Amino acid sequence: MIEALTSVKNPLVQRMRTLKSAKGREAEGQMLIDGEKMIREALGAGLVPGDVLIDEGILAQLNDLIKMLETAGAKLYQVPYRILEAVSDTVTPSGVCASFTPPKKLDLSQPPARIVALDGVQDPGNAGTIWRTADAAGFGGMLLGAGSAEPTNPKVVRATMGSCFRLPAQKVPDLAQALAQLKADGYQIVATSLDGQDIYQRDALGEKIVLVIGSEAHGIRADVLALSDVRLKLPMRGGAESLNAAVAAGIILYELTRGI
Amino acid sequence: MIEALTSVKNPLVQRMRTLKSAKGREAEGQMLIDGEKMIREALGAGLVPGDVLIDEGILAQLNDLIKMLETAGAKLYQVPYRILEAVSDTVTPSGVCASFTPPKKLDLSQPPARIVALDGVQDPGNAGTIWRTADAAGFGGMLLGAGSAEPTNPKVVRATMGSCFRLPAQKVPDLAQALAQLKADGYQIVATSLDGQDIYQRDALGEKIVLVIGSEAHGIRADVLALSDVRLKLPMRGGAESLNAAVAAGIILYELTRGI
Repeated sequence: MIEALTSVKNPLVQRMRTLKSAKGREAEGQMLIDGEKMIREALGAGLVPGDVLIDEGILAQLNDLIKMLETAGAKLYQVPYRILEAVSDTVTPSGVCASFTPPKKLDLSQPPARIVALDGVQDPGNAGTIWRTADAAGFGGMLLGAGSAEPTNPKVVRATMGSCFRLPAQKVPDLAQALAQLKADGYQIVATSLDGQDIYQRDALGEKIVLVIGSEAHGIRADVLALSDVRLKLPMRGGAESLNAAVAAGIILYELTRGI
Repeated sequence: MIEALTSVKNPLVQRMRTLKSAKGREAEGQMLIDGEKMIREALGAGLVPGDVLIDEGILAQLNDLIKMLETAGAKLYQVPYRILEAVSDTVTPSGVCASFTPPKKLDLSQPPARIVALDGVQDPGNAGTIWRTADAAGFGGMLLGAGSAEPTNPKVVRATMGSCFRLPAQKVPDLAQALAQLKADGYQIVATSLDGQDIYQRDALGEKIVLVIGSEAHGIRADVLALSDVRLKLPMRGGAESLNAAVAAGIILYELTRGI
């Protein structure tokens, strides 16, 4: 029998609501994962579930997921839909949401060969989509600078379609400093820049690279750009002046892993 | 002196409101363009403006745009902001919106060398982003099959960032039939498909190609896929199963125009 919670004022519900904010996630050491598909992805990646709220009306449909969650040590609660509306950050919650211990952060003492770094990519949809594409392209980790979206922001998580559970990331307070350290470790810092070299005419890159992606509106900040060893741009052939940030990042991520 | 309209019930305002729907745009032979930047893009592409509604509170800031619109033959009206809220499809309209004669459609009797075709790409943001990327990559036209977004849908228009005014498109009732015609004209039909060849291992393509993009959820329909001469897929190297539709399209659009 799954315990029932009926009040939005229940302390557990109140605590889960705080996971919508970066501050709340920091205080609890937990993140919020919404929806059956994403919860399955998190379990598949070995993440540890905490509390799970399930719409009392769809309990029977989720038998299989409930067993998986119980096996993984989760505490399950059945709740009226309005509690899910209070906890979830979506307008129409899916009917199940869970707190999880966040995935391990990118370990900068043992960095992977290919890293993508976001400088001021605030839009959570763009940040999450780039994370997803970096995973598919074969990058090994992601850095997020201070002005970028939070890696455990539920909108970021959704846009990654699960890649955030597999590809380790880390938010760093000072991206330039982190890049300087990687540069000292032998990484080439590759920046996308309108004054860069045509990416298809580039000189060969080494194995260890950090690809820096700036925001669609403002590009890469000067202190970060100053660290770059290579500046690349995509050709703009029609009348278009620029590309969507996630699309541009996707093209470059795949181009730089073309031969691997 | 710019004429003032004060009532949402004014027949001109009512007519502009109908431009939110495909049916209304069809009946009026006009499309709706919202915001200063997009109106400038449309004028720059030589499109002919009809009626323009301007927030009476920001008239003075738009002197330059107003002159351009008057020169292009537009009829201008100053209106209270609530009329813009009624006419625009955005939650917070920018303060100026205009009806325009839509751009010329893609001429299938003289098709360009490289065409992108959308099969069931319903999401207007994705359809518009692919349009924008196709323009930047150097494609010459776009086809939209019956299940895809409407090319004059305001959300599509916004996502193109102006490329919809330059890169000609056409919505076709039967995409398979249109592709069969192009195939008979010597075009290679290139489909993206999970059972395709690795795009980086592909055989050389001819100059005349149609790249078909399916929906993220359903892929390409069977009757369209059956027409394909070449099926390509992007490698998925990490744990990701798929990419965002607009990102995948962007990578492939640029990859196929790599040498041009």
